[in-house]
Amino acid sequence: MPAAPSREPAPARPDGPDPASVAATGEFGLIAALTGDLVQPATTLLGPGDDAAVIAAPDARVIATTDVLVEGVHFRMDWSSPEQIGRKAAAANLADVAAMGASPTALLVGFVCPPSTPTATAVAIGQGLRTEAEAAGASVVGGDVTSGPVIMLAITALGSLGGRPPVTRSGARPGDVVALCGTVGRAAAGWAVLSRGFRSPREFVEAHRVPSPPYAAGPQAAQAGATAMIDVSDGLLADLGHVAEASGVVIDVAVPPVPPRMAEIGSALGIDPVVWLLTGGEDHALAATFPAGTALPDGWTEIGAVREGPPAVLVAGRPFDAESLGWDHFR
Amino acid sequence: MPAAPSREPAPARPDGPDPASVAATGEFGLIAALTGDLVQPATTLLGPGDDAAVIAAPDARVIATTDVLVEGVHFRMDWSSPEQIGRKAAAANLADVAAMGASPTALLVGFVCPPSTPTATAVAIGQGLRTEAEAAGASVVGGDVTSGPVIMLAITALGSLGGRPPVTRSGARPGDVVALCGTVGRAAAGWAVLSRGFRSPREFVEAHRVPSPPYAAGPQAAQAGATAMIDVSDGLLADLGHVAEASGVVIDVAVPPVPPRMAEIGSALGIDPVVWLLTGGEDHALAATFPAGTALPDGWTEIGAVREGPPAVLVAGRPFDAESLGWDHFR
Repeated sequence: MPAAPSREPAPARPDGPDPASVAATGEFGLIAALTGDLVQPATTLLGPGDDAAVIAAPDARVIATTDVLVEGVHFRMDWSSPEQIGRKAAAANLADVAAMGASPTALLVGFVCPPSTPTATAVAIGQGLRTEAEAAGASVVGGDVTSGPVIMLAITALGSLGGRPPVTRSGARPGDVVALCGTVGRAAAGWAVLSRGFRSPREFVEAHRVPSPPYAAGPQAAQAGATAMIDVSDGLLADLGHVAEASGVVIDVAVPPVPPRMAEIGSALGIDPVVWLLTGGEDHALAATFPAGTALPDGWTEIGAVREGPPAVLVAGRPFDAESLGWDHFR
Repeated sequence: MPAAPSREPAPARPDGPDPASVAATGEFGLIAALTGDLVQPATTLLGPGDDAAVIAAPDARVIATTDVLVEGVHFRMDWSSPEQIGRKAAAANLADVAAMGASPTALLVGFVCPPSTPTATAVAIGQGLRTEAEAAGASVVGGDVTSGPVIMLAITALGSLGGRPPVTRSGARPGDVVALCGTVGRAAAGWAVLSRGFRSPREFVEAHRVPSPPYAAGPQAAQAGATAMIDVSDGLLADLGHVAEASGVVIDVAVPPVPPRMAEIGSALGIDPVVWLLTGGEDHALAATFPAGTALPDGWTEIGAVREGPPAVLVAGRPFDAESLGWDHFR
């Protein structure tokens, strides 16, 4: 009798689990469904199926970052499709790799769900993860699946710096320009729309469901000489605040122009869209500082300047006054 | 006003969170408490505090593995101390790195807990993680903390192969000997003791609470020419079953000798200790195959042989008949 667990679904029993649930598919069946047809890039030297994966690190260094998304905290199953949830979880991590100036190579996925979860839901989340990984040039190389009270995705992204130094949060210098690549405020606007019970405008709701981080812009900024960089996940001011503090500088950004469609939604909901633009997280734009006079790479827009002074972020030279500056997951 | 979130605990309010809870400490305060005094090995080129860490990968490859532990599924707060839970979560991952023949370099930690969790509990779990990481020569280099309905630890371990090929599950060949390093069945015996409401014998209860994987034995086995290797996390027969299947061989192990103390407990509880030895998981021993005639490294004991045939694991030449062969997390 082979000791390896069976890869066949358990037969349905009158008192058994729903045959369409992960309880019936089982741990090993689910792993097989999630990894069966994965295509691996050349950097994956050993993919899923062993105790660990082996990933190429051509310049003898590896970038590594972890983010966890929890059902009811970071996403709602009734607001997003399973595939969108997978894409969003992957994007949050892949954007962190890009923000170091690196190219993503691999994702490892810790997947927790209740035994009653439909297997199709788990597989669709996995499909979302791989779709977003491929969009960033990476692949899912390993993971773990287990049961728990809610769906949780713990993702680790690995990446390669291509021989360049990492672009940290601490390199901004007085005189640098501050620039942004990607959108801000759109996921926050979409969240505001969804939380009022609406499902449109689609453009903003989709931005909440699946961010579109500009992955390639990270390495491009590094090549162009970016002195500091960060993934805008908690809100532009909050994340620039991390740069200001790590670099010991003042960052002064201009009042952002409000896109017309966002102005309309703000007006309809009674919310100042500038708050979305300055404090909304989860679009996963990249913010970076560059030496003055740098020809910014395509897609980057100058939004402010770095000055001497005790660490602070200013908007048009003054402190920004809004109730919420970014997001603390325990408050 | 600095935009960076305050690192001070929130003041206690009559209607506010318990000042000793992570809700009061806050996300950034908790990160500071968890990472403040970490000592990093030379392989950590950039530690916690940025969008991602940078880890040395001297031979241009990195080993990576992820395991998730969920409160109520993998551990109970009333059976283990927070520090023990952290150590066990780290050990499960570090052992996977060792089982590839690699040396652990880094841990990334996704930490989920309810806002009411005492900050001291979270910090003690973090202390356990770093204690175990240091025991394996690694360090905690990054992570994410967020709220959720129960405590969950999603750990990713990275490691270095030191220029050697990885030792996978698929290299066992007929004629090889099967060997074991580390203990089996002790965590299972400890679990059986705890589940009957007892707290002793301490030796087995402690084995359930904190495994002692033989980390250095992984690279040593690789150097000695191990053809296949696996971390015994699901039970000896189940995990050797993975090797048998991946390698396309029969693995035949001897009936394991029962240590006298384990025999006593089995007798007291009415459980055959051979079942613990063959099917108990979570001790995180390493099982490996070596070409016949290999001088086994210190700590390794021959337990069986590899033969030709359809993939199977046998005990003394016959299928082992027990209700449970390893653990499926959804059943």
